[in-house]
Amino acid sequence: VAEEMVSAAVSGERFSAVYRVAGPEERARAVAEAICLEQTVELPARLLPPGNVGRDVVGRLEDLSPAPDSAYDARVSFAVETTGGELPQLLNVLLGNVSLMPGVRLIRLEPSPSLLRRFGGPRFGRDGVRRLLGVADRPLLATALKPMGTDSAALARMAFACAMGGIDLVKDDHGLANQPFAPWRERVARCAGAVAEANAATGRRTVYLPTLTAPHAELLERAHAARALGAGGLLVCPGLVGWDAMRTVAADDTLALPVMSHPAGLGPYVLSPASGVSHAALFGQLMRLAGADAVIYPHTGGRFAFTESDCRSIADATAEPMGPVRPSLPVPAGGMRLDRLPELRRFYGDAVVFLIGGDLLGQPDGLRSACERLVAMVSAPGQEVTADGSRTDG
Amino acid sequence: VAEEMVSAAVSGERFSAVYRVAGPEERARAVAEAICLEQTVELPARLLPPGNVGRDVVGRLEDLSPAPDSAYDARVSFAVETTGGELPQLLNVLLGNVSLMPGVRLIRLEPSPSLLRRFGGPRFGRDGVRRLLGVADRPLLATALKPMGTDSAALARMAFACAMGGIDLVKDDHGLANQPFAPWRERVARCAGAVAEANAATGRRTVYLPTLTAPHAELLERAHAARALGAGGLLVCPGLVGWDAMRTVAADDTLALPVMSHPAGLGPYVLSPASGVSHAALFGQLMRLAGADAVIYPHTGGRFAFTESDCRSIADATAEPMGPVRPSLPVPAGGMRLDRLPELRRFYGDAVVFLIGGDLLGQPDGLRSACERLVAMVSAPGQEVTADGSRTDG
Repeated sequence: VAEEMVSAAVSGERFSAVYRVAGPEERARAVAEAICLEQTVELPARLLPPGNVGRDVVGRLEDLSPAPDSAYDARVSFAVETTGGELPQLLNVLLGNVSLMPGVRLIRLEPSPSLLRRFGGPRFGRDGVRRLLGVADRPLLATALKPMGTDSAALARMAFACAMGGIDLVKDDHGLANQPFAPWRERVARCAGAVAEANAATGRRTVYLPTLTAPHAELLERAHAARALGAGGLLVCPGLVGWDAMRTVAADDTLALPVMSHPAGLGPYVLSPASGVSHAALFGQLMRLAGADAVIYPHTGGRFAFTESDCRSIADATAEPMGPVRPSLPVPAGGMRLDRLPELRRFYGDAVVFLIGGDLLGQPDGLRSACERLVAMVSAPGQEVTADGSRTDG
Repeated sequence: VAEEMVSAAVSGERFSAVYRVAGPEERARAVAEAICLEQTVELPARLLPPGNVGRDVVGRLEDLSPAPDSAYDARVSFAVETTGGELPQLLNVLLGNVSLMPGVRLIRLEPSPSLLRRFGGPRFGRDGVRRLLGVADRPLLATALKPMGTDSAALARMAFACAMGGIDLVKDDHGLANQPFAPWRERVARCAGAVAEANAATGRRTVYLPTLTAPHAELLERAHAARALGAGGLLVCPGLVGWDAMRTVAADDTLALPVMSHPAGLGPYVLSPASGVSHAALFGQLMRLAGADAVIYPHTGGRFAFTESDCRSIADATAEPMGPVRPSLPVPAGGMRLDRLPELRRFYGDAVVFLIGGDLLGQPDGLRSACERLVAMVSAPGQEVTADGSRTDG
């Protein structure tokens, strides 16, 4: 068979992935060498043709170093040509079949220059979102319109109250898709209109982000319809609609809308510590590479199981140097309450979006007033205003 | 807030999902009740508005029963309207945020009649694929063109040899996307042409299935181009391009091509036994619902870690009654070798596609001859022909 193969030239540019592989060392090395084959040529080494298929196209184990928990970190490099310059195939090289191997976790991407240029990342990034909103120097605030089952008029009233109350980013709950309770187009028109009306009254620039959970063939059409109807951003769940759908929306110059990503469906990638993908690689690196300006994930202590160190690693990865790719905003969420704001602010500082959903709806003083209190809390330097509106002595 | 909400009517049709939840019973019940809220309204129960949002839109715990390993099976029903009739949102209701909850595994779908009609499932199914191929009564055979790095002409020569040797389904390796080694359109044209030439010579109806790993906005265009170029089917990785991309391709009447699904990127959903999705629900039920005529998964004992019972559960789920949705063909793969054929046939019987990739390329008698031996092995009733071509006494 070997003589039937014809090798193709590669540029020499390689990118890397670091996999944490269960030990002992000999096992880890064998697994790392298997990954080099599995993610590219899918042939045993003895069957590789002569020439540069076996030399350059195949993954290359660059380094194997001891890591915590008796594991080893295997840095595997790949020719940039293996991706064809397309995100779904980059995901395949990084994670395709290796995702089926127990005891292997993708912990870090090391993209090469042409990949970073190719995928571009967030259109706005941290600074661009702040410029869009006209908010320079405090944590940004987001909330979610809910619950599913509410009609468009009522959701629009909620959007109006949130925008009047000063919330920066008013998004649909991620479960609001195209249900008969509040059909997509009707809801987007009404909520975008309500936010525009509030902005006209306040002089602020609150943005409404509808959920873009749509069938494959309608997704881009809905994204453009959202813009036409007045939406100022989009909420995308790459775990439901595909990673490249998010990248496509983010990269579309005729849309030019900020993208907030939601983690729905992605839990299994991070939950098992010895397989899948690290929190930092998934919610930091991959979300950025795929264009998310703001990245929602469950903060520790809410309804989900991320640890403090998971959350720290995500926040760090949203801002680490990544060539021309802009930093994203971390959006800790998942059952956050107003009374946790001081703690959240100590943890994240001001380079963050706090997403508080249900707890705002439960405040006795009503939605608009609760939003106003929230804005006051994050507008005061340090933690001078507490959840009940009183000032502390700090 | 409650008075701002307006309830919407629901039809009363509900579908269910069964989640396996870690015990003890009180914990499992609390988690199951949390799932009912999390997957729909995302509000604490005390904040639900009066009317049918809190009564019908919210998930409903229908049953909680003891399960193996001190766990409990929670059957949760949802109003069919929560999906909006769209697959990404169905996935969200089944798996969205709950995928982030440790100790919860989606083990079974119980779709309702309108969902089954809506999504349709495989266009061809087991019988349709056999009719297309003209092979009534033996295991079907598939192989993969590889390795990445090979040029289109050489891949086409391999496709020709496989088709001449009698392989039924000749697919691209799933890592062949649109790389410079063998650009997508050129490769598809050449390989489809080679298979057509072989079919003209043999009178058989071998089908060539290119890999459809494409950017979001090009995917449907490539699917149609594949058909125009002579491809007889498509290989789709829903973990890379999105589940609804696969459904869309399967449901497209102007394509009318059989779809083979590949598990790239989906490992984390099944690998951790206490979270994610069961093998049967993912590779059986969800793949069928999303239109896969044939479902590739790693058979036990190959390069991956599925157990015999995982594989049995998948094979069973591809054929279990599912209203109007046709059965899919199970495609055990992942490092299968010719010498395992007798064992595989004992395990699966004849209602199966055996996918043998690299091992065919490594046979000393060359690719076409190895394919012919493989066809002879599965054409003989029982296990009369062994891997080396000799007949047994059985």
